[in-house]
Amino acid sequence: MQKYSSKILENAINQIGKLPGIGHRTAVRLTLFLLKQPKEEVKIFTESIDMLRNNISFCHICHNISDGEECEICSNPSRDKSMICVVQDIRDVLAIENTNVYKGVYHVLNGVISPIEGIGVADLNIDSLLQRLEKESVAEIFMALPATTEGDTTAYYISKHIKTRFPRIKVTAIARGVSVGNELENTDEITLARSIVHRVEFESTFK
Amino acid sequence: MQKYSSKILENAINQIGKLPGIGHRTAVRLTLFLLKQPKEEVKIFTESIDMLRNNISFCHICHNISDGEECEICSNPSRDKSMICVVQDIRDVLAIENTNVYKGVYHVLNGVISPIEGIGVADLNIDSLLQRLEKESVAEIFMALPATTEGDTTAYYISKHIKTRFPRIKVTAIARGVSVGNELENTDEITLARSIVHRVEFESTFK
Repeated sequence: MQKYSSKILENAINQIGKLPGIGHRTAVRLTLFLLKQPKEEVKIFTESIDMLRNNISFCHICHNISDGEECEICSNPSRDKSMICVVQDIRDVLAIENTNVYKGVYHVLNGVISPIEGIGVADLNIDSLLQRLEKESVAEIFMALPATTEGDTTAYYISKHIKTRFPRIKVTAIARGVSVGNELENTDEITLARSIVHRVEFESTFK
Repeated sequence: MQKYSSKILENAINQIGKLPGIGHRTAVRLTLFLLKQPKEEVKIFTESIDMLRNNISFCHICHNISDGEECEICSNPSRDKSMICVVQDIRDVLAIENTNVYKGVYHVLNGVISPIEGIGVADLNIDSLLQRLEKESVAEIFMALPATTEGDTTAYYISKHIKTRFPRIKVTAIARGVSVGNELENTDEITLARSIVHRVEFESTFK
């Protein structure tokens, strides 16, 4: 069945419609938008995506997305190399960077231990983290893993290894608690329970 | 301020974030999705957009989007050439085609008369419509213009010209009325008023 007057148009709509969360209507809207843009703009748009897929590499230190051997965070002299934040994937790096609060460096595990999904210790960048700790002078490992059984298991596994092999390194974890601006009654029980157990000095909450 | 570990990544996120209705979070999500896709898939994706912008043309008969001189609708022998549907833009062609109900051909005006926006008769494909009527054997002109003052004005202008120069051609307009599945109380007054004035034979509503 011929749905479009142009196969080129149909093709572009179908390709854009393959993006996650982009339905058919949105795909049509985005396609017609691109069609109306100046040719140079569309060229810049598609080139940026081609560049992304073909020229991006991963930092050999922290496994974060990088333009070269070493990522912009690891090669930035103003970042505190004595603190390493351990995260599940690059999305978490982006989220933490957006807060503008963290000044240390990262280590991207590329997942968390998950027996159900068949992800074991060997599939993650855990060995390279321990190797980093041997070479670099690290004071604190800051675990920012997901608040799931898998995340907690992974954090526990890593912290146990660090405590055994590098007893001087402090291991911290991201605070779990009631979201800023959230009502207590809208917070789930487990989070609320943790927030009570891990309550902090009143004044520190305003820092 | 350095927000990303990679300028290539940052660039792609910014470019995708320029699309209408795509916020920053969605741009990040789509960018990371594209990064995880096989290289060939991403190549097909960007090529389809480059093709769209560089190789698409407009049908010289109906001004619809086309891969060549004549669009797939105008060149399709099974479409009824004696009926021309007049629409504002290509988006409307797509919407009507999606219904699978219309078997005639189209004429894309590329806008409607709008003194406020400075769009006059000369800016629209009205002359080429009248020229088509001289050459082709057309029985019906079906106005499917927006239900706005501008749309109505444009439809009135065109129908007046057709009635004067081609009195044998029947001019029809798309029905305005209560949306299928809509409650009467949720329908705006003007639409409801029109639906009462233009009420139809009861049995025809089930066709």
